[in-house]
Amino acid sequence: MKHEVLQLIDILGTISFALSGVFAAMQRRLDIFGILIIAFITAVGGGTLRDLLIGNLPVTWMRGTDYSLIILVTAVAGIAFHKTIRHYRRTLVVFDSLGLGFVTILGLQKGIAFGLHPGICIALGTITGCFGGVIRDISLNTIPLIFQKEIYATACIIGGCVYFGLQMTGLGRDWLDVASIAAIFLVRLAVIYYKLALPDIYPKNDGVTV
Amino acid sequence: MKHEVLQLIDILGTISFALSGVFAAMQRRLDIFGILIIAFITAVGGGTLRDLLIGNLPVTWMRGTDYSLIILVTAVAGIAFHKTIRHYRRTLVVFDSLGLGFVTILGLQKGIAFGLHPGICIALGTITGCFGGVIRDISLNTIPLIFQKEIYATACIIGGCVYFGLQMTGLGRDWLDVASIAAIFLVRLAVIYYKLALPDIYPKNDGVTV
Amino acid sequence: MKHEVLQLIDILGTISFALSGVFAAMQRRLDIFGILIIAFITAVGGGTLRDLLIGNLPVTWMRGTDYSLIILVTAVAGIAFHKTIRHYRRTLVVFDSLGLGFVTILGLQKGIAFGLHPGICIALGTITGCFGGVIRDISLNTIPLIFQKEIYATACIIGGCVYFGLQMTGLGRDWLDVASIAAIFLVRLAVIYYKLALPDIYPKNDGVTV
Repeated sequence: MKHEVLQLIDILGTISFALSGVFAAMQRRLDIFGILIIAFITAVGGGTLRDLLIGNLPVTWMRGTDYSLIILVTAVAGIAFHKTIRHYRRTLVVFDSLGLGFVTILGLQKGIAFGLHPGICIALGTITGCFGGVIRDISLNTIPLIFQKEIYATACIIGGCVYFGLQMTGLGRDWLDVASIAAIFLVRLAVIYYKLALPDIYPKNDGVTV
Repeated sequence: MKHEVLQLIDILGTISFALSGVFAAMQRRLDIFGILIIAFITAVGGGTLRDLLIGNLPVTWMRGTDYSLIILVTAVAGIAFHKTIRHYRRTLVVFDSLGLGFVTILGLQKGIAFGLHPGICIALGTITGCFGGVIRDISLNTIPLIFQKEIYATACIIGGCVYFGLQMTGLGRDWLDVASIAAIFLVRLAVIYYKLALPDIYPKNDGVTV
Repeated sequence: MKHEVLQLIDILGTISFALSGVFAAMQRRLDIFGILIIAFITAVGGGTLRDLLIGNLPVTWMRGTDYSLIILVTAVAGIAFHKTIRHYRRTLVVFDSLGLGFVTILGLQKGIAFGLHPGICIALGTITGCFGGVIRDISLNTIPLIFQKEIYATACIIGGCVYFGLQMTGLGRDWLDVASIAAIFLVRLAVIYYKLALPDIYPKNDGVTV
């Protein structure tokens, strides 16, 4: 894909992840600094864990000020206009899903660059896409949403399988990017729109303590 | 020790750690994906932190698919047969204690290979053995069990002291392995069987908020 | 600054951070081992995250036994004399603030040594100063204090700005150290003494769930 398009999706994904942090932090009535930190953690958390696990150090966001500035501006704007922004939740979900697809495939490709097994690359991509939300939830003292009601990870795993599946057909790298990001985007939107969930494994009223 | 025996204990330890994650996650009624993640975190958490702290990157479980496959199969089997498996809790404790001994001494030896001080090696071994359970508990939004009622860490520390104590006597490496893993195994079982606990430092009814 | 003075402040800061961990853990009635761990996490947590993020591995506290011994002795003394020590809380705050200044500027300088941008260095210093308390609070299953009521981070950020501001005037390294550590120390004490807080962004009784 063209470098400019990738960069734009990266920025939109970062903004959308940061906004999800701002909203979660404001619901818990954190002070301004707390909101900034949660926005930051949510936006860079997944990529930071990815870099730590494979030894890509210093971690990406520390190599320049781009990410920090985008997140700072997003968080300040999110605090100032939070009532207005909430009206555009549907638009945000589109950015968020695109961002999820982008960071997942970027994480997967870092794994390839470090010579890891395809299965591990898919895991690494999924960690990159989902871990920011996990740290956000742990920091806010709730059981991570992702552990209770699956929204993100399945989409990331399917996207990763699409990537390596199509790679075996000899498709070019650009098309792999487009197809796998699109798969994550569409699965995620389908999950939200049709309220899909993993099959429930607990019998109703079975007496297990919640 | 023979390589095959070590590998077998490693696999049994991984299975047993993964199962403890499955049971903890099912008690909180997480969905299938949440259970898989908690099983994974519990099984590889300690070794991952060990590798991060000493800079042994990419972390061990990312260098192949062995660990991931073992944990995946264990988690699926644990979910399917959880009622049956609960009947074999005593057998599981034996695996768990053997696994604890093994991963602790493996962590300690990584510290030696990186040229660290014996005291730090013991700490590293203890972190490797215990941290998976700590991350599991933090992810499930409870105060880690290990901070409240000591079950694991004392056994790991004693095993580490046995290792370096016997090393000074000039004992061979194989015997160091056997003796220190056996020490952890036996101390851990003794703690469970005799319900040993660290001395209580809080006076009863002293008015301190719980 | 003279090496001996720096080392003394470092030791005092470590002791003070460890004591804050001991007190927080005793309030939750953790057992002796749990208190030791929380003391350890609080004292080395910030520096460990700093080292992980920039790839300064093995992490600093693992390269010798100095930190471990200081924290061990502090924790044991803190448990034994916790009633007496509580009377000297004001004295502790002085150590704590000095320690905060020191570890923050030390973290910032590690960033410089790794060739990072000044803004990132300030973030790194702030992470080093504040993250120990964050991990302490997450481990004890509470929303980190720092996210709710800002006490530390603003002081660290101001100190970092003082450092780079004065650096542009061509001031010598020793004076940069003294001035920026003093800034953090004084801002922190002023925050406590005058009960300063960030402006409240939530309207009163606006119906947002706490």
